[in-house]
Amino acid sequence: MKKVCLIIGAGAGIGGSVGNRFAKEGYHAALCRRSDGNGLQALVNRIEEEGGSASGHLLNAVEDNALETLVTAVEKIGPIDTVLFNLGAQIGNRSLETTTLKNFELGWKMACLGLFRLAKAVIPLMESRGGGNLLVTSATAAVRGNAGQHSHAAAMGGRRMLCQTLNAEYASRGIHVAHIIVDGAVDAPDTLGKMLGETQFNALRQARGGDKDGLLLPTKMAETYFHLAQQHRSAWTHELDLRSYTDLAWWNHEVH
Amino acid sequence: MKKVCLIIGAGAGIGGSVGNRFAKEGYHAALCRRSDGNGLQALVNRIEEEGGSASGHLLNAVEDNALETLVTAVEKIGPIDTVLFNLGAQIGNRSLETTTLKNFELGWKMACLGLFRLAKAVIPLMESRGGGNLLVTSATAAVRGNAGQHSHAAAMGGRRMLCQTLNAEYASRGIHVAHIIVDGAVDAPDTLGKMLGETQFNALRQARGGDKDGLLLPTKMAETYFHLAQQHRSAWTHELDLRSYTDLAWWNHEVH
Amino acid sequence: MKKVCLIIGAGAGIGGSVGNRFAKEGYHAALCRRSDGNGLQALVNRIEEEGGSASGHLLNAVEDNALETLVTAVEKIGPIDTVLFNLGAQIGNRSLETTTLKNFELGWKMACLGLFRLAKAVIPLMESRGGGNLLVTSATAAVRGNAGQHSHAAAMGGRRMLCQTLNAEYASRGIHVAHIIVDGAVDAPDTLGKMLGETQFNALRQARGGDKDGLLLPTKMAETYFHLAQQHRSAWTHELDLRSYTDLAWWNHEVH
Amino acid sequence: MKKVCLIIGAGAGIGGSVGNRFAKEGYHAALCRRSDGNGLQALVNRIEEEGGSASGHLLNAVEDNALETLVTAVEKIGPIDTVLFNLGAQIGNRSLETTTLKNFELGWKMACLGLFRLAKAVIPLMESRGGGNLLVTSATAAVRGNAGQHSHAAAMGGRRMLCQTLNAEYASRGIHVAHIIVDGAVDAPDTLGKMLGETQFNALRQARGGDKDGLLLPTKMAETYFHLAQQHRSAWTHELDLRSYTDLAWWNHEVH
Repeated sequence: MKKVCLIIGAGAGIGGSVGNRFAKEGYHAALCRRSDGNGLQALVNRIEEEGGSASGHLLNAVEDNALETLVTAVEKIGPIDTVLFNLGAQIGNRSLETTTLKNFELGWKMACLGLFRLAKAVIPLMESRGGGNLLVTSATAAVRGNAGQHSHAAAMGGRRMLCQTLNAEYASRGIHVAHIIVDGAVDAPDTLGKMLGETQFNALRQARGGDKDGLLLPTKMAETYFHLAQQHRSAWTHELDLRSYTDLAWWNHEVH
Repeated sequence: MKKVCLIIGAGAGIGGSVGNRFAKEGYHAALCRRSDGNGLQALVNRIEEEGGSASGHLLNAVEDNALETLVTAVEKIGPIDTVLFNLGAQIGNRSLETTTLKNFELGWKMACLGLFRLAKAVIPLMESRGGGNLLVTSATAAVRGNAGQHSHAAAMGGRRMLCQTLNAEYASRGIHVAHIIVDGAVDAPDTLGKMLGETQFNALRQARGGDKDGLLLPTKMAETYFHLAQQHRSAWTHELDLRSYTDLAWWNHEVH
Repeated sequence: MKKVCLIIGAGAGIGGSVGNRFAKEGYHAALCRRSDGNGLQALVNRIEEEGGSASGHLLNAVEDNALETLVTAVEKIGPIDTVLFNLGAQIGNRSLETTTLKNFELGWKMACLGLFRLAKAVIPLMESRGGGNLLVTSATAAVRGNAGQHSHAAAMGGRRMLCQTLNAEYASRGIHVAHIIVDGAVDAPDTLGKMLGETQFNALRQARGGDKDGLLLPTKMAETYFHLAQQHRSAWTHELDLRSYTDLAWWNHEVH
Repeated sequence: MKKVCLIIGAGAGIGGSVGNRFAKEGYHAALCRRSDGNGLQALVNRIEEEGGSASGHLLNAVEDNALETLVTAVEKIGPIDTVLFNLGAQIGNRSLETTTLKNFELGWKMACLGLFRLAKAVIPLMESRGGGNLLVTSATAAVRGNAGQHSHAAAMGGRRMLCQTLNAEYASRGIHVAHIIVDGAVDAPDTLGKMLGETQFNALRQARGGDKDGLLLPTKMAETYFHLAQQHRSAWTHELDLRSYTDLAWWNHEVH
């Protein structure tokens, strides 16, 4: 039975690339997303064509018991060794007035409550087997709140603190929690591409030097995700940042 | 008509002391708490006996429209110049297993959603009058997550990022948002005292040098809260910490 | 004998304004700067004309024993209760190539070693009298390093950590160390004005809304410096930021 | 001609292990330390016995021109692709009174000025070849100052800000600067072992679960150092932490 890497939020960007990377190393990749069963199946097919093992799971992560049921189902495929929690909650910039209570609650349910529920479901299983990895994709909004980011920043700020409380409780019990601050635009047509629209997304890619590497490339990011899951327990990383060489770090301003 | 200082979370600790301090300077103190109408009335009476103006308001902040209705009602007393959001969400240390979904959601509703709802209700009124102050009592859990603090830290971490997004959107429009990190035990029988129980609370006070100043004294903290609301807009503080001289800062460890 | 407030770095901006503020409250203001004895005397005269007590001291803070000798001399005027360490080390943006070893060393000597030497000289005296305040003006460069700030950021980053080690060792012994992050342009002709030149400085003031309050006004900042020195030891602030309402916080980016 | 990995501070701990790791992947490891030529030669020999390429260089990094001369000499062996700046400046806990000006200056010269000088010497060479990696071993003291750490924390805090200014200036020009926060005790007899003495060091190892992995194992840390140097420029990490699973993160306190 293969070790499982469970990906919550597996589109054509980070999630899919990480699933692919783990599958290449012999893991079963359990890929989950909310919609687009065809796109999901395409990801599974690609992994299988390259000789890997994968399965696709549609789920609405904010529904009661959805994550808990998923964990139970995936454990039948194999023991979950690594989980990537990759749900975002970015809805673009909205003023306080136009950010609704519903926006605010949904952001929290996706980005913060979802991680809490997942952790409650999967960490005890990992602990009973001696260890496991919980990789959490995060965003700049987890460390600073910009204008227009009321919903997103509040959700991600909560998520970051939750990663710390999980680490504080479980590191010594063999669970490696890693909080990965993605501090830049990702070259992901499914997420950033949809948010910006095709024209603006392509303009951004061109402005950053064409389709080469001015945006964060998911296949390259996946190398670091995989490395984190392989770190020896004597030398674990809890938090790191990722950005393209062309990007300003969030703490820097343009110097004129 | 007096300027109003509205206190959300007015017990015998920080909230009551801040209300008292503002009332001494000529503000009407609108004091709100969830229960104990007698205790609330006692706070109001004390302010009035000293020649100040105050009113008491019972509200359950997590109920739909409670905060919004409160703001409307208090505005009839006078224009809200300063709000102190002083709701905590500390429930003591609980393991992941014993932290329920309900705990986690309630913590967020109190500490994070409550601030968002309050901001939506009151900031536009302040802005229409050219300015105002939103003071937010916060905790160490807003900047680091300790074991057992899953609910509290996730809620406060979200709150801190929300304070930053509010500041980023509204500072230039005259609204001063201040995030006050209370990094130590407060000498407050209503909150810490109740959580610890009388015996343990008194033992802590004795260990810190009796009833003088080893814990954070709410009347002394209130001086800084009041100062923040008086800062000129050319020199605003967004974030500061408060602790007793006997306390280790959260980032320090005992040196042996 | 009056309590002394000793200002290291007293120009027409923060240093002079803080001296003035303390003198109004009955302190003797001992004002120190490197050069321009006439300007220094003018500050002293102004304080005395308003009924306060002040003295002027020229010193080159990076010379061996200069700070130590100063402390001894000023203690003869009265007991030093509060020190403001207000030396900057900003030399504008320089590339790595054009930042010399001499620049780098001088920045450190002013901003970091100077504070260490001062602390060694003055803190034991304060401690022997039961307490005192060490206020340290700091800059955004203490918390993040921008391009071109090699010398300044390295010096200020060291200074911030030194403030923390001093606080960790001395808070419980009655010494209040406060690290004040000035996160914006100060309306100070002596420092920013000289660095930018008169034309560019006036243009900046106009762009921020004329001479009213778009830049940090030193007289208003002085209110917060004074407040910090008056905080009761049960509720001390170790770190806070100051910026004008028109300024973006250092962690925010313009949203387009 | 092999690509060179230059290690400044190559003892039997992190430095030697990183050199070994890079040598295994085909780099020439240029190993530098201040003293113990025999120990240095033993490191070189071990690498060569395993089929790798290495050279040993004794240098006193705080001497004028020592680092600059070293860079010139090593470039004759091959182009420097990666530098590990691994000089520490920990001298144990000392009170303010017993920390001398000489301690304070030496700490800065080692930990902060040394990096500045190295960067000035090596980065232009890397840039002329299109890129390179500057890996900087750092310590908890770079992000918080504990009591007794005046010299160490001031030096490391400056170092961290310098890493940020270097990154801000050079990332877009192909230079990857990584600041690695080693937040725990390293199983290194040459450094921690010497500081604690053999008896106390062995007691610490036993308390952490014997010689297995309760302390940070340098050979395991080296995996992450190597990974950082291999990250694609579209997904670079600037800062990460490393600690053993048994260690509390610096921001956590024991929960009782």
